[in-house]
Amino acid sequence: MSRPHTSMSMNLNKTATVNETRIRVRYAETDQMGVVYHANHFIWFEVGRVELLRQLGFSYKDMEREDDCFIAVVDARCRYKAPVHYDDEVVVRTYLKHVREKVIHFGYELRKVDTGKLLAEGETTHIVANAKMKPRALPEKYMKVFRAAVGGP
Amino acid sequence: MSRPHTSMSMNLNKTATVNETRIRVRYAETDQMGVVYHANHFIWFEVGRVELLRQLGFSYKDMEREDDCFIAVVDARCRYKAPVHYDDEVVVRTYLKHVREKVIHFGYELRKVDTGKLLAEGETTHIVANAKMKPRALPEKYMKVFRAAVGGP
Amino acid sequence: MSRPHTSMSMNLNKTATVNETRIRVRYAETDQMGVVYHANHFIWFEVGRVELLRQLGFSYKDMEREDDCFIAVVDARCRYKAPVHYDDEVVVRTYLKHVREKVIHFGYELRKVDTGKLLAEGETTHIVANAKMKPRALPEKYMKVFRAAVGGP
Amino acid sequence: MSRPHTSMSMNLNKTATVNETRIRVRYAETDQMGVVYHANHFIWFEVGRVELLRQLGFSYKDMEREDDCFIAVVDARCRYKAPVHYDDEVVVRTYLKHVREKVIHFGYELRKVDTGKLLAEGETTHIVANAKMKPRALPEKYMKVFRAAVGGP
Repeated sequence: MSRPHTSMSMNLNKTATVNETRIRVRYAETDQMGVVYHANHFIWFEVGRVELLRQLGFSYKDMEREDDCFIAVVDARCRYKAPVHYDDEVVVRTYLKHVREKVIHFGYELRKVDTGKLLAEGETTHIVANAKMKPRALPEKYMKVFRAAVGGP
Repeated sequence: MSRPHTSMSMNLNKTATVNETRIRVRYAETDQMGVVYHANHFIWFEVGRVELLRQLGFSYKDMEREDDCFIAVVDARCRYKAPVHYDDEVVVRTYLKHVREKVIHFGYELRKVDTGKLLAEGETTHIVANAKMKPRALPEKYMKVFRAAVGGP
Repeated sequence: MSRPHTSMSMNLNKTATVNETRIRVRYAETDQMGVVYHANHFIWFEVGRVELLRQLGFSYKDMEREDDCFIAVVDARCRYKAPVHYDDEVVVRTYLKHVREKVIHFGYELRKVDTGKLLAEGETTHIVANAKMKPRALPEKYMKVFRAAVGGP
Repeated sequence: MSRPHTSMSMNLNKTATVNETRIRVRYAETDQMGVVYHANHFIWFEVGRVELLRQLGFSYKDMEREDDCFIAVVDARCRYKAPVHYDDEVVVRTYLKHVREKVIHFGYELRKVDTGKLLAEGETTHIVANAKMKPRALPEKYMKVFRAAVGGP
């Protein structure tokens, strides 16, 4: 599900972490155009985000429950490169683009599993907040690991 | 949005309350069969449920927040009579079928606004619970009004 | 993902096919009650249905595209036994309850993977239709296999 | 539902069209953070888009069916300014930012109805395609009206 690799673009000297999670397109995710409805890509990005955290040793569930740390979306964008079809197997490639104390920036690529074709690219920006949606700093245990994982696809 | 009327079938001697709420079918709700995906009917039933409560003088939001009263679904059923299409205007007709201290039973009809055609029929059964999902009795202020509103379409 | 087994209840003398498909609960599937919103169970049932077909050697995608065979829902029901939480791993156990020329009846169980706890039970009834939503008979190649797979959990 | 007005920023000499469509937040649209899940904003933007077209005299349903004209999303972005809560009434303000023969650019504002508070801002870019997802030019009858409607909020 994961593939650490060296990115030549933004992070010359370090190893970035990219999570790869496979998703099988559900019938419910299609619309009458015969392709996946575009809002679902953001749901898949979130699936990738959670799996990237898991790969880094964290459970987002526990971040919320035990550390009162919520990763609230403040900006989300997707560029759709090709239609996605029912029953397709797609891989969400998720990585950390930037991490600061109160802001986390994720990047995503969506590719068709069998051909590797690029289906979509995206980014989301998140602020760290507590259960009452007040901004707070990311605890050091996350910060350390996130910083080491920053990179590109 | 509402139409109190006399039901001859189940409630010979009283006036039942039926809420009528209109919904415009969203593109996101269709699937590649070119019709509304069947899980959405349950979301519309919930919209009808909330509007029936509002018609009866209650806000479900406040039921949860102020009275620690959650209406958790334990059984849901829908019989699909005709496909529903994108951009159709449909009316959800919601009514209370039975009310007991800890169990509430709602009924629904889904009809096309312009023709009155029956699109679906459904029922949901709910238990009354607190925020921790423990069963509790429905407060008397709701019980009194709900009992008076029980009836059929 | 699959487990053929002998059901003692409805099918004394034959081996029923039960598909087991795992699903990781998505954040998008929760609601503010802190549990999975009840309409999502029907989406998961559909995921199970498609995987049962795949296990039987068929692709629902091809059924639609190559054989002009749509499995349209006419009745859907779910009994909710326990709340399902974010990030839980659940298994959908799907089986064929009855098959006739124009009507197919599926059954479902939803269980928590780690404890085996029953989370929900459901059934859906489908008619076989063509792309224009006209009823049609199920082609023999499906009928033969479906009949042999009928059984209980 | 609509409010034509003069925008001073981008369109000094003409009247831009802004559609205002109200949406009541559904329980299904919330997540366990107690606010609306962020992918739903894109669904609401689409509702606004369709209503803007209706206000301009067109039915998107007919655009697809009669004119073989699909407005496929190629880029979508949302900036989240404030959390949206269950049962809130929100207004989607939709306007055309740019229109070219094969590309249409919409802008959106999401505001709370009672306070006018800005909840989110967004944009989507669409290409005009036929039913087979091949790019095509927007028919002149749309182009003329769309061009006249371009403006800002």
